[in-house]
Amino acid sequence: MYSKEILPELRIRWKKIQDAMKEQGTEALLLTSSVNLYYASGRVFNGFAFFTSDEEPVFFVRRPFGFLAGTLYYIRKPEEMVAQLTSLNRFPQTNIALEADSLSYTEYNRLASLFPEIEKRNGTPLIREVRAVKSDYELEKMRESGRRHDAMYSHVSAVFEEGMTDLEMSSELEYIGRQLGNLGLFRIFGSSMETYTGSVLAGDNADNPSPYDFSMGGEGIDPSLPMGANGTVLRPGMSLMIDLGGNFNGYMTDMSRTFAIHKINNPLAIEAHRLSVAIQEAIKIMAKPGVAVKDLYAVALEMVKEKNLEAYFMGHNQQAAFIGHGVGIEINELPVITPRSQHLLKVGMTFALEPKFVIPGVGAVGVENTFAVHQEGVEQLTNFPEDLQELF
Amino acid sequence: MYSKEILPELRIRWKKIQDAMKEQGTEALLLTSSVNLYYASGRVFNGFAFFTSDEEPVFFVRRPFGFLAGTLYYIRKPEEMVAQLTSLNRFPQTNIALEADSLSYTEYNRLASLFPEIEKRNGTPLIREVRAVKSDYELEKMRESGRRHDAMYSHVSAVFEEGMTDLEMSSELEYIGRQLGNLGLFRIFGSSMETYTGSVLAGDNADNPSPYDFSMGGEGIDPSLPMGANGTVLRPGMSLMIDLGGNFNGYMTDMSRTFAIHKINNPLAIEAHRLSVAIQEAIKIMAKPGVAVKDLYAVALEMVKEKNLEAYFMGHNQQAAFIGHGVGIEINELPVITPRSQHLLKVGMTFALEPKFVIPGVGAVGVENTFAVHQEGVEQLTNFPEDLQELF
Repeated sequence: MYSKEILPELRIRWKKIQDAMKEQGTEALLLTSSVNLYYASGRVFNGFAFFTSDEEPVFFVRRPFGFLAGTLYYIRKPEEMVAQLTSLNRFPQTNIALEADSLSYTEYNRLASLFPEIEKRNGTPLIREVRAVKSDYELEKMRESGRRHDAMYSHVSAVFEEGMTDLEMSSELEYIGRQLGNLGLFRIFGSSMETYTGSVLAGDNADNPSPYDFSMGGEGIDPSLPMGANGTVLRPGMSLMIDLGGNFNGYMTDMSRTFAIHKINNPLAIEAHRLSVAIQEAIKIMAKPGVAVKDLYAVALEMVKEKNLEAYFMGHNQQAAFIGHGVGIEINELPVITPRSQHLLKVGMTFALEPKFVIPGVGAVGVENTFAVHQEGVEQLTNFPEDLQELF
Repeated sequence: MYSKEILPELRIRWKKIQDAMKEQGTEALLLTSSVNLYYASGRVFNGFAFFTSDEEPVFFVRRPFGFLAGTLYYIRKPEEMVAQLTSLNRFPQTNIALEADSLSYTEYNRLASLFPEIEKRNGTPLIREVRAVKSDYELEKMRESGRRHDAMYSHVSAVFEEGMTDLEMSSELEYIGRQLGNLGLFRIFGSSMETYTGSVLAGDNADNPSPYDFSMGGEGIDPSLPMGANGTVLRPGMSLMIDLGGNFNGYMTDMSRTFAIHKINNPLAIEAHRLSVAIQEAIKIMAKPGVAVKDLYAVALEMVKEKNLEAYFMGHNQQAAFIGHGVGIEINELPVITPRSQHLLKVGMTFALEPKFVIPGVGAVGVENTFAVHQEGVEQLTNFPEDLQELF
């Protein structure tokens, strides 16, 4: 089921899941989404991971059939789990948690019907809280992803050509990303976002509102995917915000950088970009274990108000209600950096911070980086230069 | 909400949905997934489309807020729909269908609670059956997608270089696809598949089983996405099956082609490839409105058995249980071409047919094309040459 190398790491994850179960009085947990099976086993398979709080998990595998080694049971249908769990004397007696926020209503009911007598709970918050705190192994994966993400962005100035479009820039960088090992797949929790590889926003396209829950909008090139690049020709004085996904090993990093086409002379845009960096620096200083996530938001908003830039903060025509989010296997993990967040920062949490602005006539400005929380403060996992880099 | 140009087309779609509702006695239908909102309105938005069988649908929009024109109501929360529907005198009295196969359990229950007194039904099969039959407008989009998909594949021989890997070939073609306007996003119904852009399989990597419900497998380059290209160096005698997505306008086409690295001398592989084309030709002749989809499968299997190639059909180490599938906004629409399908072909249905083989020591062979069903027979929407094309 899993390679021996990763077993010590998996035991760390299992214990975290089991500790959370004990704390909640959750007897059993059944995971089945790709992201959670990947977390629980180190690989994606089609099947289930069944947890109780005191023993090692049981893996039920539908596919690939007959090709995985280790402690697992091959099944054809989920119903076969009942007999297996009963014979293992592990069939839950009081309650079981299912992934109610990611299983479809139909899938959930099919699984819930296997445990007819006992209480059903929502296991999604539990596993998302566990996944929000990364192990050293996971952090190392994210560092590696950040390094390659940096390398991808280092090609922007060489790729730039006079008269090219935002979409051409995007496809060139996607291509370079693939050469650097980007898996490409952009994993998103929930149904509020869709994208191919992220977004490249030039000029006033940044002010086109999108239906999606990303920090920025963009019209896109088709009404079936209304976000990001829309074919804008890059012209002097525009900003170019590059926010492309980095998924080099199953763990994502999130990074945005703003480039100036030739030069940005608009003082408001220059001030807003500087403020984005200043907000980041202020948050880097205050972000420590125990700090309330909502306080990070409050500090950012305070700094924005001080400069009277609220009208442009996190968008202009349409504004996002968050300035950052957890990141890991999915791009939108916990915690979410909002004014109402109940989260406190913990050692091992990773988050993307993206205090951005949209300035009419110029475009999006600001920076986004991925951070990891340590006892003594935060570590920055994405490190490409942050100034408004001029492209010629 | 929608442009005037597309309104006649939308009226056709609305009538199809309403006819299906009347046939089932479904009073109301609430759509909220991106794909179904795109179908119902011609664009993706965040919100809901509410249908009754006799009046034009009501659109409730959460985002983009304040930027869409037409007959719609802006809402912040789904709960606001109740008062609106009541004041419009359209609040359902007997039953409502929700997307039970795509809404999460949590989302479904939130929506269901808005209609506490009435029967809840699963609206997913209804809308998927409606979407399975394309209008002339949709077929034209798929033709256009097919033409660009053909153009993308026409670059394979120029892209090929001695010593390149399957992954390098994939990234080159992804890049070319983007130049040709590929949106990239690969929309999949359900949770049984994940991919970035599709799959490129070289040599024995085609025999690596995958957890996903694609026709073929592949190891991938990371256990977080175990499918497709795995970095195999393309060597003489291998087959190279290219099965990359074509989503040029919101409607996908599906096409696979097999290339020979230099030359394939293995007689079994050559015979299997020919048989794939022969199965396709037989099915092209028999596929007409009213024909049972399961009979298409039966004919294919019969032809495979006649040549004693069952052991290699639809995979070797792991075999897929279907030889084709509907295609449109999503890659896996109805009908699915399986032995137990209850579907009959109808005018306007579109399907991908992919009778493929995996030959140990060579790799995957065969062809896949997308077809549309007309009164007089099928139209092939993907038309790149189908022979085993040799790459030097």
